[in-house]
Amino acid sequence: MRDLNEFTITAEVLRRIENTPDPRLHEILASAIRHLHDFARETKLTEAEWMEGIKFLTRTGHMCSDVRQEFVLLSDTLGLSMLVVAQNHSRPAEATEQTVFGPFHVEGAPVLATHGSNLARGVEGEPLFVRAEVVSPDGPVADAVVDVWQADAEGFYDVQSPDWSLDEAALRGVFHTDAAGRFSFRSILPKSYPIPSDGTVGEMLDATRLHPMRPAHMHYRIAKPGFDPLITHVFVDGDEYLDSDSVFGVRGSCVGQFVRHEPGVAPTGETVEVPFHTLDYRFVLHPRDQAANS
Amino acid sequence: MRDLNEFTITAEVLRRIENTPDPRLHEILASAIRHLHDFARETKLTEAEWMEGIKFLTRTGHMCSDVRQEFVLLSDTLGLSMLVVAQNHSRPAEATEQTVFGPFHVEGAPVLATHGSNLARGVEGEPLFVRAEVVSPDGPVADAVVDVWQADAEGFYDVQSPDWSLDEAALRGVFHTDAAGRFSFRSILPKSYPIPSDGTVGEMLDATRLHPMRPAHMHYRIAKPGFDPLITHVFVDGDEYLDSDSVFGVRGSCVGQFVRHEPGVAPTGETVEVPFHTLDYRFVLHPRDQAANS
Repeated sequence: MRDLNEFTITAEVLRRIENTPDPRLHEILASAIRHLHDFARETKLTEAEWMEGIKFLTRTGHMCSDVRQEFVLLSDTLGLSMLVVAQNHSRPAEATEQTVFGPFHVEGAPVLATHGSNLARGVEGEPLFVRAEVVSPDGPVADAVVDVWQADAEGFYDVQSPDWSLDEAALRGVFHTDAAGRFSFRSILPKSYPIPSDGTVGEMLDATRLHPMRPAHMHYRIAKPGFDPLITHVFVDGDEYLDSDSVFGVRGSCVGQFVRHEPGVAPTGETVEVPFHTLDYRFVLHPRDQAANS
Repeated sequence: MRDLNEFTITAEVLRRIENTPDPRLHEILASAIRHLHDFARETKLTEAEWMEGIKFLTRTGHMCSDVRQEFVLLSDTLGLSMLVVAQNHSRPAEATEQTVFGPFHVEGAPVLATHGSNLARGVEGEPLFVRAEVVSPDGPVADAVVDVWQADAEGFYDVQSPDWSLDEAALRGVFHTDAAGRFSFRSILPKSYPIPSDGTVGEMLDATRLHPMRPAHMHYRIAKPGFDPLITHVFVDGDEYLDSDSVFGVRGSCVGQFVRHEPGVAPTGETVEVPFHTLDYRFVLHPRDQAANS
């Protein structure tokens, strides 16, 4: 086809990719082409604007490294990540809801004792004592694998340190629930923090007058054969950013009660000399056979 | 807003960017967000597929360097570049049409004599003698600046050589039209060639069973105060890829007659010992005051 114009070109591009062997790739690519073309027509995009877009994508790619994923941040801040999570994890009302995975999980974090461990591993912050249980509609879930990770009091994850190694993992660890589905540990109170804003996503946030803040939260990934894997956050109730999370990830059902206590005896029986916090939380898994039908 | 689902999240993202100071940026970004979200919903994109997309974009960014622009290639092969060109350059029937600029133009190419120059500068190929004129509806356009660039007989532009410098420019140059709007030069016959396919665009072409070929062509950029600048190609009539150009750039009005001749006397008066080709071509500029009204 010659002499394609801005209206006829879309059908020709779609015709050209008709022989794509993988039907799902064909479906995704055809949809992407239609929306990309519609976007350019709708905005009557100019060549200069299109070149600005090319340069933005190029700089975004150049920011990406083994420890930085700027396209994930971009997807997160455009609401795309949470949209994809939401449409793939509709759950019954009683099951704990899924939210964005984020870029800071690490496979292979240290396995910690089910009760009595200190997740903070020496990192400073306001003491927090977590007592949690994992249940299903049929009762406690024993021996579930619970992966926990959180930022420090300045809002940084350990992996953001340039010379980090897994041997120095802090504020992350793996627990196995006991026979009653329980686990508990000591940590520090999570704080709200900005997503990295020294890259192209930071440029976009500036240009759109958006703040980069996420409300304080802890990440949990819980797996047990026979249950739909759960990736979620527990957010700190009362946080000022709960309604303006920069990555749109807040679920009302995932807000936890972090209760402040004056210095005294902690749930572990130890005496704490400073104010401390407690969190009691129940995670409800969704049995996989039900998950398959939902 | 908490508890956004895959349907409510779009309105919330759009609400958040309402304070964007630049109205055009706001318009473009809002359209991009709507189409990005619609794409994800329409395909019911999964988290694994979304991660494949993130990785594809990241690899595309990592391919980009000072001499390689993989996002431009991607835009070209998805038909987006030609769509943007088309919608920004509607021209009256008599004016030469615009097509894609491509990634291989270089500013500052050597200025050559209006007649009698050899663009090939020693590069091997079948001899070509070009006689061209630049006109407008009002007659010849004298002293127009004509920038010409083309690939060699193997399909490579000089800038694709790793140690290229402007001093060694070949198959590119700048002419100034004479009082009759004419210029002429010797070169070599352009050949069809593949766009670079060793990157992510190559992956996409493979996966969709598309060929990377462009029909043989020469690039022209023609500028003269008072006229709409023209960026176009002259394609070789009869080329087997004219109807399947990998970047969708062919305009019927931009196909030229490259006429083959047996060895003998060339248009320049010189005797050529091998078969040679001639191209006679007329470029029609669009006066700028008309352009502003079109």
